[in-house]
Amino acid sequence: MEQLTLHEDVRSGNCYKIRLTAALLGLPLERKNYDIMRGQTRTPAFLANVNANGRIPVLQAGQRFLPESNAACWYLADGSALIPSDRWDRADMLRWMFWEQYNHEPTVATLRFWLHFVGEANLTEFQRAQLPAKRAAGEAALALMDEHLGGREWFVRGQASLADVALYAYTHVCEAGGFRLRDYPNVCAWLERVSGLPGFVPMD
Amino acid sequence: MEQLTLHEDVRSGNCYKIRLTAALLGLPLERKNYDIMRGQTRTPAFLANVNANGRIPVLQAGQRFLPESNAACWYLADGSALIPSDRWDRADMLRWMFWEQYNHEPTVATLRFWLHFVGEANLTEFQRAQLPAKRAAGEAALALMDEHLGGREWFVRGQASLADVALYAYTHVCEAGGFRLRDYPNVCAWLERVSGLPGFVPMD
Repeated sequence: MEQLTLHEDVRSGNCYKIRLTAALLGLPLERKNYDIMRGQTRTPAFLANVNANGRIPVLQAGQRFLPESNAACWYLADGSALIPSDRWDRADMLRWMFWEQYNHEPTVATLRFWLHFVGEANLTEFQRAQLPAKRAAGEAALALMDEHLGGREWFVRGQASLADVALYAYTHVCEAGGFRLRDYPNVCAWLERVSGLPGFVPMD
Repeated sequence: MEQLTLHEDVRSGNCYKIRLTAALLGLPLERKNYDIMRGQTRTPAFLANVNANGRIPVLQAGQRFLPESNAACWYLADGSALIPSDRWDRADMLRWMFWEQYNHEPTVATLRFWLHFVGEANLTEFQRAQLPAKRAAGEAALALMDEHLGGREWFVRGQASLADVALYAYTHVCEAGGFRLRDYPNVCAWLERVSGLPGFVPMD
């Protein structure tokens, strides 16, 4: 594979997904860090050369740039055992990855960012008004995961896949956003399984 | 392929994506309609049998159920020309599909739902407070599409793909959410190309 470089903010779970995927696959990954809280992904150079959407992560492969964490994980894992070979299971994996970006990341990850990194005292009035809805939606997301994992080892039938990687990233640090992992025992057991995968690397 | 049934609300662009994918592929699709504004996807029977997340669309294939619109499109199109065979292009297609769910749907689609179906006078105070941010983010999403489509026929190199299907669904009806398509000429030309694809079906 080409030279791989991850443009990231090390605190971001979306970036960690890509590091974890690369580690599970044994792929070397260069890393270039940006501080999103200091606007380093909104500079003219970043917007022109890395991602016009002004966000990290971006996976660089040679001279090409791929934004969107779950798409970058797919690129790395394409053809590997982290993507099921069965047609239904492959679509079911993507189902959980799209769900993660729509239902889980904007709630579970956003509350961690706001409460742990920005700080509740520094939130805008508009952000503060969103806290109850994001709390409820995040708890619903974690509860749905817990229900799904009852009697299952992994999100998709029979194997660890990118669905587990994508959902692990922000779930395992959700307590920094005020969620209580002990309320979700199936999730806790699954987190242990993910962190026991060969090649696993922690977030920090 | 198994008997395919789409559990949908006919007004939803997320549901239309699946109908459009099936039509482009010539796949027959049974349809079962629900009224999301009357809570028909939150009944105990729906939650137990169709989708524990209480949302449409859900693609039913035989006795199996697949939520998340873009995952359902993938299932239908897997192995077809709507998914690029090149590894980079396939990941790049998923990049636009994840971007659609994260940056485009929660802004462009939500404003259409709120302003066209719920009605501005019926919005909650909390929804009303979100209008300016969703307007700005939706305009930024449409501008990013317009910039990307400058000099390009399709979102992914060289071919119509599921990225075009996913982004067409809510873009072509964005004026119902108060956006002005004429501000995005490259988007307008691309909408024409999508609607000219063999097998294309309109939303209604």
